[in-house]
Amino acid sequence: MAQRILVLGGDGYLGWPTAMGFSRAGHRVAIVDNFAKRQWELEIGVRPLFPIPTLHERVRAWREVTENEIELHVGDLTDYAFVESVVDSFRPDTIVHYGEQPSAPYSMIDARHATYTQANNVVGNLNVVFAIRDRSPETHLVKLGTMGEYGTPDIDIEEGYLTVSHKGRSHTFLYPKTPGSIYHLSKVHDSHNIHFATRIWGLRATDLNQGVVYGVETDESALDPRLATSFHYDEVFGTALNRFCVQAVIGHALTVYGKGGQTRGYLNIRDTIQCIALASANPADPGELRVFNQFTELFSVLELAERVKTAGEHLGWNVSIEHTPNPRKEAEQHYYNAQHSKLIELGLQPRLLSEELIDTMLDRIKDHRDRIDPTTLVQNVRWLPEGFSVPAAAVGAKPR
Amino acid sequence: MAQRILVLGGDGYLGWPTAMGFSRAGHRVAIVDNFAKRQWELEIGVRPLFPIPTLHERVRAWREVTENEIELHVGDLTDYAFVESVVDSFRPDTIVHYGEQPSAPYSMIDARHATYTQANNVVGNLNVVFAIRDRSPETHLVKLGTMGEYGTPDIDIEEGYLTVSHKGRSHTFLYPKTPGSIYHLSKVHDSHNIHFATRIWGLRATDLNQGVVYGVETDESALDPRLATSFHYDEVFGTALNRFCVQAVIGHALTVYGKGGQTRGYLNIRDTIQCIALASANPADPGELRVFNQFTELFSVLELAERVKTAGEHLGWNVSIEHTPNPRKEAEQHYYNAQHSKLIELGLQPRLLSEELIDTMLDRIKDHRDRIDPTTLVQNVRWLPEGFSVPAAAVGAKPR
Repeated sequence: MAQRILVLGGDGYLGWPTAMGFSRAGHRVAIVDNFAKRQWELEIGVRPLFPIPTLHERVRAWREVTENEIELHVGDLTDYAFVESVVDSFRPDTIVHYGEQPSAPYSMIDARHATYTQANNVVGNLNVVFAIRDRSPETHLVKLGTMGEYGTPDIDIEEGYLTVSHKGRSHTFLYPKTPGSIYHLSKVHDSHNIHFATRIWGLRATDLNQGVVYGVETDESALDPRLATSFHYDEVFGTALNRFCVQAVIGHALTVYGKGGQTRGYLNIRDTIQCIALASANPADPGELRVFNQFTELFSVLELAERVKTAGEHLGWNVSIEHTPNPRKEAEQHYYNAQHSKLIELGLQPRLLSEELIDTMLDRIKDHRDRIDPTTLVQNVRWLPEGFSVPAAAVGAKPR
Repeated sequence: MAQRILVLGGDGYLGWPTAMGFSRAGHRVAIVDNFAKRQWELEIGVRPLFPIPTLHERVRAWREVTENEIELHVGDLTDYAFVESVVDSFRPDTIVHYGEQPSAPYSMIDARHATYTQANNVVGNLNVVFAIRDRSPETHLVKLGTMGEYGTPDIDIEEGYLTVSHKGRSHTFLYPKTPGSIYHLSKVHDSHNIHFATRIWGLRATDLNQGVVYGVETDESALDPRLATSFHYDEVFGTALNRFCVQAVIGHALTVYGKGGQTRGYLNIRDTIQCIALASANPADPGELRVFNQFTELFSVLELAERVKTAGEHLGWNVSIEHTPNPRKEAEQHYYNAQHSKLIELGLQPRLLSEELIDTMLDRIKDHRDRIDPTTLVQNVRWLPEGFSVPAAAVGAKPR
């Protein structure tokens, strides 16, 4: 059934393909964005691999190519009056909320970037929740979280909730989170705030703890060069596999942080679009915070690098892997077993990572080789600032 | 050993007595405050029971009465440059952090008050953490949290951490939180952020999950009327026992929200001062987030009201109890068993609630009876806004 879908952060890597996907499937789509991401790109001096037109131009190109309309609302989610007026006038069935500062390194630059990230994300998300409560309480909020909220606990990661037996009694909690950056913490705060909104006001929400997304295009973005998505390979906004592919194309060593045993969930950008569509078509009940772990496969960073190396070598390239000092503070060897069955039960058909897909990525990236700026591959954002040493007594201390 | 103690929020109900307590015990004390609390009082039209001089006057009176100096830094914790300069110049051994918006009802007024509360508290606390990291990494942060962060789970509430056995493996998590207001959520966010700072940067911190504080004075505030503390009885800033005592004095029914089975931890304001002193004298280790549940007794709201009624009747007063509609959304009958042994192990000698103490409170309040404004006892802040009804499907739904 056709829905009214509001995509927050619809100018982004995932937001724009999501908006196009829903529009092409016959839904009525509106986008909110304030172009903050383009400002952050300018601030740190990076740009997406493919040339990205203005959002107004993208929307016009979409109309030309598909004869579909996408509405555009330019404004800031931290401005409550704006959020309230958009929700009140558009009355979405579903709000897909990507509209946050999405980079862990960006959040770790310094105090100002840390507080900006948390205030921006937490206030924006709270404004969305209040606008739903006060103007459109039947709206289903589909919120993008991240698998990084969980950290790397020594027990299995369940899908959102954990039932604990303790001293002969039992309670089901939101799964406890131990995230690894100021950005990931902002998503944990969001999850707690949304949980409150479902418990107290009976709102309906789905929290998608998404893995690391890879891929250069979706069916829609491939229709026309003007519809390309904002693909990043720099250290601040790029993600592991995407960065490795760019490094392979320009003959740069694949830079694996530390030992490379860091294991995470990954998924294809096309599967992101599929997951969002499934979550929207099957909304949470009133009062329910539904949590999905949104990824299709687990890889260690080193495994990913080896896959890219193999694919590059089959193309006749010379690809090397380099273990560089880890700018982050994280476990480089750890237990990791995360459940991810709920989206499969809703019908997700995963596109698993294949050499063919990596080939396609390498090919598409090679076409834009002249736009690659290798100086942005390393931005020197460190979890421990230069000159800072963790007090000796704290090194190796068992976390409490 | 004498310490350098920085009290954030040192103009408040607990901050000012804390500053005086440390100063009298021979420590060097500095206060930070921006008087935001006095603005919130003006905004909603309430005032403390006792006349409160300006903080400059209080500091001068303290010098006159005790010949001790307290330093004063006026500024906003959300201003990083200010926080950094105070931490850099004062180099505190201990920072006692009360400097947050402390009222659950205030945070629930509307979207603006909700986002203000979370941004103010989360950004201020992050600025303190970064200033410690970048200017004074040996400083011990003593952060005021609240027992309300935990909510009312069906299993025992441990002191900060919960070891979970799951599918044959085991992990110790920060105790998972299910708080009951936007304000309480802000404290949960703070706890996660501080946990990160201890894990990643090796900072040392103590998170005090404090119960509901009652009492009109401490040894120091009683020395001179100009040293009185900011005692509130209104619905927004007052707490249960304090409000019941004021209601008893003016012959108003004691207003118990709903059934009154809501059980919480409570402590005397003099014990707050004692707990903060113990936490400061016995700092956390580098890399450690130590969590204390800071209360001395558990009471249901109805039990508290009955205690006040009994004490009032012994004074010959006519005291009634009224069950009013609960403005909050919370369980009114629930399991509640919270551990609180760590401060006792450090030497806390609790002053338990006795009829004699309630007598003294009633007496001191009676002396200021003419300053009591009964219209502020009910401010009509509701967890469910007027006209809002929770979707039928969500009522009685088992929280997930």
